[in-house]
Amino acid sequence: MTSVEQHAALVRSLLQFALATETVPITAALGRATTHAVLSPVDLPLFRNSQMDGFAVRAADVASVPVTLPIVGEVSARAASPAFLEPGTAVRIMTGAVVPEGADAVIPVEDTTVLDDHVTITRSRSTGEYVRDRGSDAQAGSDILPAGQHLAARHLAVLAAAGIEHVEVVRRVRVAVITTGAELIATGELPQPGQVYDANQVALVAAATSAGAEVTYAHRVWDEPAALLGALDEAVTVADLILTSGGISMGDYEVVRELLEPRGALVGHVDMQPGGPQATAVFDGVPVICFPGNPVSTQISFEVFVAPILRERAGLPQARRSTKTLNESVRSAPGKRQFLRGRIDGESVALVSGPGSHLVAGLAAADCLIVIPESVTTVGLGETVEVWEL
Amino acid sequence: MTSVEQHAALVRSLLQFALATETVPITAALGRATTHAVLSPVDLPLFRNSQMDGFAVRAADVASVPVTLPIVGEVSARAASPAFLEPGTAVRIMTGAVVPEGADAVIPVEDTTVLDDHVTITRSRSTGEYVRDRGSDAQAGSDILPAGQHLAARHLAVLAAAGIEHVEVVRRVRVAVITTGAELIATGELPQPGQVYDANQVALVAAATSAGAEVTYAHRVWDEPAALLGALDEAVTVADLILTSGGISMGDYEVVRELLEPRGALVGHVDMQPGGPQATAVFDGVPVICFPGNPVSTQISFEVFVAPILRERAGLPQARRSTKTLNESVRSAPGKRQFLRGRIDGESVALVSGPGSHLVAGLAAADCLIVIPESVTTVGLGETVEVWEL
Repeated sequence: MTSVEQHAALVRSLLQFALATETVPITAALGRATTHAVLSPVDLPLFRNSQMDGFAVRAADVASVPVTLPIVGEVSARAASPAFLEPGTAVRIMTGAVVPEGADAVIPVEDTTVLDDHVTITRSRSTGEYVRDRGSDAQAGSDILPAGQHLAARHLAVLAAAGIEHVEVVRRVRVAVITTGAELIATGELPQPGQVYDANQVALVAAATSAGAEVTYAHRVWDEPAALLGALDEAVTVADLILTSGGISMGDYEVVRELLEPRGALVGHVDMQPGGPQATAVFDGVPVICFPGNPVSTQISFEVFVAPILRERAGLPQARRSTKTLNESVRSAPGKRQFLRGRIDGESVALVSGPGSHLVAGLAAADCLIVIPESVTTVGLGETVEVWEL
Repeated sequence: MTSVEQHAALVRSLLQFALATETVPITAALGRATTHAVLSPVDLPLFRNSQMDGFAVRAADVASVPVTLPIVGEVSARAASPAFLEPGTAVRIMTGAVVPEGADAVIPVEDTTVLDDHVTITRSRSTGEYVRDRGSDAQAGSDILPAGQHLAARHLAVLAAAGIEHVEVVRRVRVAVITTGAELIATGELPQPGQVYDANQVALVAAATSAGAEVTYAHRVWDEPAALLGALDEAVTVADLILTSGGISMGDYEVVRELLEPRGALVGHVDMQPGGPQATAVFDGVPVICFPGNPVSTQISFEVFVAPILRERAGLPQARRSTKTLNESVRSAPGKRQFLRGRIDGESVALVSGPGSHLVAGLAAADCLIVIPESVTTVGLGETVEVWEL
């Protein structure tokens, strides 16, 4: 028998693999993490430009106001003349446009009056006012993003502003999902007596995706070791991590156990309900985390052992854990950590469905797991319990 | 002049459109919202089955123990016989396998000893123990998901378990992004004097995607009204909402204003910095939310006015807002709400970069906006400020 913490530590030790890097266009980089600091190849802003619509002048020429200056040109995104501002003149300028050499301040249009080709300026401005200096946001060669930055819109914006088209990011964890069980059929098939729809493939694919991984392989095998071997052989070529469901308990026809235990898999029992049977293996160098086959056991096992690690690697927030007041009483088997299904209502939590590991509708109706420690056999009405939000 | 709240209310009133529905495979439904309650077409479990590996018996036959019964067959995912259990006999059974008619309890394997074709049972079990009744999780015709359920892995699992292949969901908000400005070039082009890389397209596409929308159109136009008109004509065919950047201030060549104001656009100024110029329009029945062109203004405007509505419609959590202690002092223009860029450190927050609306590297280095109300002109070191996490 293994504790939840011991098994979690074992899983974590297997998931220490180094991830490859890849270079992606910035348009495909949302949410990805940079592999190293990104330096700006250019000054930002690229050139000295105006912060306002108005007139570019020499500050010295507007030291005493009102003053009237001839308008000698215009700079906007369309036109840029003159390149050099002679003393005693003004040039009409638009926000973001190049401030001509010689000019050192911009007078906002609201502090001016224009008559024909002259502008009268009614408020002084000092050197540099309303002028954005080249490189004042970031200088060429300086870091604009640190290593390990998970890229949100604002990070992609600065890359774009600096003219950077591609960025090197950490590859997402590639996950393969292999569900096992001779009783499993796909949705769309008509169940024969004893057959059930495979809920685990859909659930594990969705759960791994939600945890920031990329599912690169999903396959269902019955209970022939050769079929599982074939699936594993395929999975290792495309995945960093393989998840399996089913085939690890003490009964007959336990295909995962049968195939992988002789290859060094650790197959055992963790002190938890649901999800007692658990196994781990390494197949062709790729970690294999094996969950029991009951859909609720599989989903809770993923949430307990694998989801936190995947979220961490993807830079996603962890599921929220808090304490609530249980609005009924419950008994729990001694020596096992119970993960009961609950529904939060403000500061209290109610049980949803029973503890059975086959209650998929019950789990779908829950919005949290209620965690009852191994040492606790009864929780009274109104007592405090730990909840993990789903 | 318009307050932030007034403009936010105007934008919200324009974004009340009804969304279409669509039917998608459950494998493509992660994160989507159901349009109506989903009923189970089947009982779950589909059939009465065993909760344990062990022996199916009549509870009456094991009322006094130890008792030895002949093993008359086996039910597993592979084999299922007999269909009916005669009194005084036992059948070997695997977890999840069909409990034969006539049997009403399962004896876990650990409470048994097998010798040849007989099993000796050492512990009584009452009727129903370790038997999962058909329909005990959900009955055919009962709700397994409510309307408006955002589909996580556990919801997809119950759909799969019930054999449901497709689900009707609310279509994501389809967003078109049109950036304007004669100065804009794409990354990959070489900037001529006065030209800048378009950061707004990448930023708005990523921000809308992060807020749960689907970006169906992204186009850059210079400052010719005909080009903008062409883009809008295309955008309305594929989008529920159009976002534009640039072209709405008081200068010349303000293409969005020039084209849309005669068509009823409201172009004005909101009491905020950055992001003063703001506009809204309806084009061919599609709402158009127009942001100013400076990249920081655009991004903050999106976060203030549009992101909360998109997140709400997508069922995503809102950005966290809290209060922190400002670790320096800052002055703020009276009558304007300031959205300064900050970096949170525990319970305090520091300013990052200046207030300029062109400081894209500054915004990328920030992890929050510091909100200074209109009525406040100075915040002292150690005073409390509102922060919006990015």
